[in-house]
Amino acid sequence: MRAVVYTAAGGPEVIAIREVPTPVPGTGQVRVRVRAAGLNRADIYQRRGGYPAPPGWPADIPGLEYAGDVDLLGPGVTRWRPGDRVMGLVGGGGQAEAVLVRQEEVLPLPAGLSYVEGAAIPEVFYTAYDALVTRGRLAAGERVLIHAVGSGVGTAASQLARHLGATVIGTSRSAEKLARARAYGVDVGIDTSRTAFESAVGDSVHVVLDLLGASALGANLSVLALRGRMVILGLLAGRRGEVDLDPVLHKRLEIIGTVMRKRGPEERAALVAEFAERVLPLFEARGEPPVLRPVVERTYPMTRLAEAHEVMERNENFGKLVGVWEESEP
Amino acid sequence: MRAVVYTAAGGPEVIAIREVPTPVPGTGQVRVRVRAAGLNRADIYQRRGGYPAPPGWPADIPGLEYAGDVDLLGPGVTRWRPGDRVMGLVGGGGQAEAVLVRQEEVLPLPAGLSYVEGAAIPEVFYTAYDALVTRGRLAAGERVLIHAVGSGVGTAASQLARHLGATVIGTSRSAEKLARARAYGVDVGIDTSRTAFESAVGDSVHVVLDLLGASALGANLSVLALRGRMVILGLLAGRRGEVDLDPVLHKRLEIIGTVMRKRGPEERAALVAEFAERVLPLFEARGEPPVLRPVVERTYPMTRLAEAHEVMERNENFGKLVGVWEESEP
Repeated sequence: MRAVVYTAAGGPEVIAIREVPTPVPGTGQVRVRVRAAGLNRADIYQRRGGYPAPPGWPADIPGLEYAGDVDLLGPGVTRWRPGDRVMGLVGGGGQAEAVLVRQEEVLPLPAGLSYVEGAAIPEVFYTAYDALVTRGRLAAGERVLIHAVGSGVGTAASQLARHLGATVIGTSRSAEKLARARAYGVDVGIDTSRTAFESAVGDSVHVVLDLLGASALGANLSVLALRGRMVILGLLAGRRGEVDLDPVLHKRLEIIGTVMRKRGPEERAALVAEFAERVLPLFEARGEPPVLRPVVERTYPMTRLAEAHEVMERNENFGKLVGVWEESEP
Repeated sequence: MRAVVYTAAGGPEVIAIREVPTPVPGTGQVRVRVRAAGLNRADIYQRRGGYPAPPGWPADIPGLEYAGDVDLLGPGVTRWRPGDRVMGLVGGGGQAEAVLVRQEEVLPLPAGLSYVEGAAIPEVFYTAYDALVTRGRLAAGERVLIHAVGSGVGTAASQLARHLGATVIGTSRSAEKLARARAYGVDVGIDTSRTAFESAVGDSVHVVLDLLGASALGANLSVLALRGRMVILGLLAGRRGEVDLDPVLHKRLEIIGTVMRKRGPEERAALVAEFAERVLPLFEARGEPPVLRPVVERTYPMTRLAEAHEVMERNENFGKLVGVWEESEP
């Protein structure tokens, strides 16, 4: 089969297509014929050499999510049949023509969605659900501040927060992205190329979704209300910095870190089961428009993912970029 | 009535006894004839001028907890009758001969306990319960690290953690306090005058109870296991410092701040109700020794609280110091 590989640690020029052995599913595994695979910022870190795949996943093939068809069952698989349209999260290896997945970690593609749309769901909607619901405990009537609201995670989180009944405040350095984000649940947009968000929102926020880390820590803590929660999803602007714990103590705040990739099989299976029950139905149109929609900015042939990496590195995309094997769509 | 007052901001020499008007209970309030009142580190901060009473509580009379008898009911009080033996938390004013309390914030003195013992319960056991259970979600089989385990909060937390089925690791700068702490649930004691705790415990801790703040932040984060929780109860060693958020993200940690004093009436009433149901019965001997015991190091006449402040400032006490009105104790 063909697979995207990184030939070395480096820039987009190290991205190549190689022939590799088609894997054979073991006990409890299904093989999925991949039609489309979402791109993520983690792909860039892995390409640069700083974010290896966790143990048990292909080390040389990138890709954290996929959509496609079940095409071969390992021994003991009872949940799936060849031809089932599926999607899911993987620790690596999604950007190949086939990927092996434990049967408990596979999700059905929601009715009415294409492979491209399905491939844009797992990473960002799992992350948003984990951050807002499981860790952040966002409740109806609360206010949530979502940074980089035009990102894949941002557009997923704003839709989910709207569904939960929260008021959504979003930041972006692009006025155009803020305008587009309104369709995905953003009530108040703050253009951080012009305005410091902390001066715009006061201390009225119940949950902050942060991607920046140390550099924004003080400002994020300052906007939180009593008993507010700050969920850290990334450290794009640095891991080390000064913190003032006084507001943490006296406002009784929580600083919560979360990352999706390094979870073991049991934890992945539990998240998949909860997501399948509580979130997946929201993607289906049931006589009216669905509550949640994957946001796909653009698709790229798998043979041209270097272009997608460049777009991500320049922060140009609104929502997700998705790679497709040319003959695969629809 | 007589009351302890601070005549100015300063050292123990500003502590005095004054005659003040005996307060009259308003609607829904009871007046408690105070027999004993626990001392707390917050009394020292308030004496120095840096920790004023929150609005609605006596600004000039210290004391965050009391035990005594109900002696006068305001209009609308249905829960209590004159002569009831009670105890509770207040935002200030506990170190007087009488204090006014909303009826929902009063707890019955557990059967078999003296006023002195009751006065040593509310602040430290509420704090330990809030920190370990409500915020830290400590579960059976987990490991908890309790700093300053010989303090009032430490001796309360270690007993509660033992009851919850956790393994208790305690730190102190005193080998003698560590030896005494074993009777209150400490399984492993670390003498931090000789050993850095982070080298003694590895990264196996599920919940840390911290009192120090910024200076210990890095070491506390380093000992936490995956999905560990650090609950900050105080900033004794500073509010500002450097933080490395990388372990917070990748171990998916939580940094949780909490403080008891500034809570409003509804939140206080909810905590009291939960505590009365879940914790108070554990103080009663039911054919065998009680699960929880208040730890009283020494009592002082209210006229000599300056000595108690000096003992606390030198960190000499194991457990609580309690002030008594001389004629009050049987």
